[in-house]
Amino acid sequence: MINSIDRFLSRSGKSTKRSAIREILKHLQKPGMISFAGGLPAPETFPVEELNMIIADVLRNEGAESLQYGTTEGEPALRNALAGRYLTSGMTIHPENILITTGSQQAIDLAARIFIDPGDYILCGLPSYLGALNTFLTYGAKLKGIPLDESGINPAELERTVDHLRQLGRKVKLIYIIPDFQNPSGITVPEQRREQIISIAEKYDLLIIEDSPYREVRFEGEPQKMMFELDHTGRVLTFCTFSKIFAPGFRIGWVMANPVILDKLVMAKQTSDLCTSAFLQRIIAHYIDKGLLEKNITKTIGLYRSRRDFMLRCLSEYMPAGVTWTKPQGGLFLFLTLPAGVNGEELLKRSLEKNVAFVPGSTFFCNNTGQNTMRINFSFSGNDKIEEGIKRLAAVIIESKSGK
Amino acid sequence: MINSIDRFLSRSGKSTKRSAIREILKHLQKPGMISFAGGLPAPETFPVEELNMIIADVLRNEGAESLQYGTTEGEPALRNALAGRYLTSGMTIHPENILITTGSQQAIDLAARIFIDPGDYILCGLPSYLGALNTFLTYGAKLKGIPLDESGINPAELERTVDHLRQLGRKVKLIYIIPDFQNPSGITVPEQRREQIISIAEKYDLLIIEDSPYREVRFEGEPQKMMFELDHTGRVLTFCTFSKIFAPGFRIGWVMANPVILDKLVMAKQTSDLCTSAFLQRIIAHYIDKGLLEKNITKTIGLYRSRRDFMLRCLSEYMPAGVTWTKPQGGLFLFLTLPAGVNGEELLKRSLEKNVAFVPGSTFFCNNTGQNTMRINFSFSGNDKIEEGIKRLAAVIIESKSGK
Repeated sequence: MINSIDRFLSRSGKSTKRSAIREILKHLQKPGMISFAGGLPAPETFPVEELNMIIADVLRNEGAESLQYGTTEGEPALRNALAGRYLTSGMTIHPENILITTGSQQAIDLAARIFIDPGDYILCGLPSYLGALNTFLTYGAKLKGIPLDESGINPAELERTVDHLRQLGRKVKLIYIIPDFQNPSGITVPEQRREQIISIAEKYDLLIIEDSPYREVRFEGEPQKMMFELDHTGRVLTFCTFSKIFAPGFRIGWVMANPVILDKLVMAKQTSDLCTSAFLQRIIAHYIDKGLLEKNITKTIGLYRSRRDFMLRCLSEYMPAGVTWTKPQGGLFLFLTLPAGVNGEELLKRSLEKNVAFVPGSTFFCNNTGQNTMRINFSFSGNDKIEEGIKRLAAVIIESKSGK
Repeated sequence: MINSIDRFLSRSGKSTKRSAIREILKHLQKPGMISFAGGLPAPETFPVEELNMIIADVLRNEGAESLQYGTTEGEPALRNALAGRYLTSGMTIHPENILITTGSQQAIDLAARIFIDPGDYILCGLPSYLGALNTFLTYGAKLKGIPLDESGINPAELERTVDHLRQLGRKVKLIYIIPDFQNPSGITVPEQRREQIISIAEKYDLLIIEDSPYREVRFEGEPQKMMFELDHTGRVLTFCTFSKIFAPGFRIGWVMANPVILDKLVMAKQTSDLCTSAFLQRIIAHYIDKGLLEKNITKTIGLYRSRRDFMLRCLSEYMPAGVTWTKPQGGLFLFLTLPAGVNGEELLKRSLEKNVAFVPGSTFFCNNTGQNTMRINFSFSGNDKIEEGIKRLAAVIIESKSGK
């Protein structure tokens, strides 16, 4: 029996490792556990009732087409519905500029596949979404983190870094950025800075991935234009998803890009999973066409705003001095900074014993910093669990500070 | 505006090209077109009525869980249902040995990702499923085709080839094989030969991908044991799908493999699309548990057998001398050999003008041979279209033979 497969593995196969965090988070099934760890939407926002009705319609009227193989690009009905939504919001996006993906994680994977050779550099925020970083690493990318200030990636720092890498003879390919309610920091990049970053990309001929899963979950403040809209040279690829505004269980996302780039993504998708479920795409298309998505987003925003506010109040009430946190205008996460010397990964082990979970912030830092940070999710748990969970967390932090 | 992205592309991005065939097949939308080209199941086999009922149940009883993110490995309900089916058929497969994928195309992609470095050799049948070959190529694999006889890949030829490549210092990683109703040849590999191939894999320490999308669509004859069952050293990975026995629009497949291999596939899947739709997985699990899948397979087999028989009769009646074809015991395709000198790709252009489509066999040969072959699908079209399509095809072949 083969027990070790090391001799068969590719560079990519060797580089994918089970993360320690993932192993720890297996304990989430424990009864009584309060989890602020995942980026899970609230099940209360899932449109169970409306789905019943829409699915019956789709099966009755489009059963044969929706259960058959679809085109790799995506169902015309959904691409049209998306283009229509953008038009309503003042953006002209042609359906041909949209590719439907199996969640926006697939978009990240396809982009890495067509652009990244081992050794190519990707610039990303310090911190940045772990799932994207891990995908980039399996393609052999080198990650270079750019520190964030209160408006996101610092452009001067970004330019210095590109310059420096160029001088070292490195191939810098793209900038990975989450401009709205960044995961995990919660920061939104102001429009002016988006333009500065695009200018740097133009100057150094880089591509930009605008990862945008949270954009529509805004509680307050003015929306900033998408980088896709601000870009005039076709170098921004934008990734969106229905996971946070509809339901992650559908695994439907979409990409907007320059047609030359989209074409390559389509070919990569074809070798990857042929096409995304036509059935699920058509259900969402109807859901949008009936105006139900906009209603669901309004409801979702209201619920998450109140949970964010409640969690912020609990933090103020229970956290010891020396702990600080973000107040994001949208999204699903708060980001906490602990007193220097407190280690998030150690803290997680203790927290799990007390039945409360979070993600240590260090996992989002590609340069092994951020040991004293943590990401906590406010969308999934109701207020009673939020209060109890923050109490437990505060107790563990206090214990830890006192060196027990 | 960026018009060329060549300077950004990875090796993989450069290697993916739009196939000429794919471009030609865009004409399938033409009114009046009869298509024997795709591997499309008959919509008559899609369980539209039963789905309505099952989906209402899933939404009512498991709405929150089914619309949420699922585990990367797959929903326990579906992995258990699959293990239960194997047990009924006499095979012990633990749910932990099963990974749910986004169609079996994703399984091909994940396996290539964890095993294939540029330059690694994969041995495959001449001909073999185009979609797998294309995926392997994007990972930089070198493909070496092994001629098929009436029982599939010839073991002596296989061993000679491995030996030869080894002597040249090449890294041979795996054998790709479709043992049941091979796409496109329709050949089923007898059990004894399966064992011979496994022995060769053991002797030379190779992995085997057993791609098995058609296995359950058997019209006659005795099922041969799966290579997964015959293997005792854990080197066979088996890929299955619900696309041909339920509905491709669900994009649900599964992999069975040695736990050490499965573990790596799970990690690769996580970076690829996080998880497959929990909603669709739970629907299929209920569909299986209610015994409906077995009924649907029986119905599907009956329909496809009668279409195969009818297409065979039409071929006998209309095809000119010098054209021969396979008589597969199952699956979705017939494979035709035309007189030497008739070119399948040229023939396709003429056929499309006459409103009938097929796939030129040459696309399935990794060594640019098979010019005088073609694959035709019998599952999708009803008898009236089958007869009219074969008439048109025969007319084009006769024309082509007479050099018009």
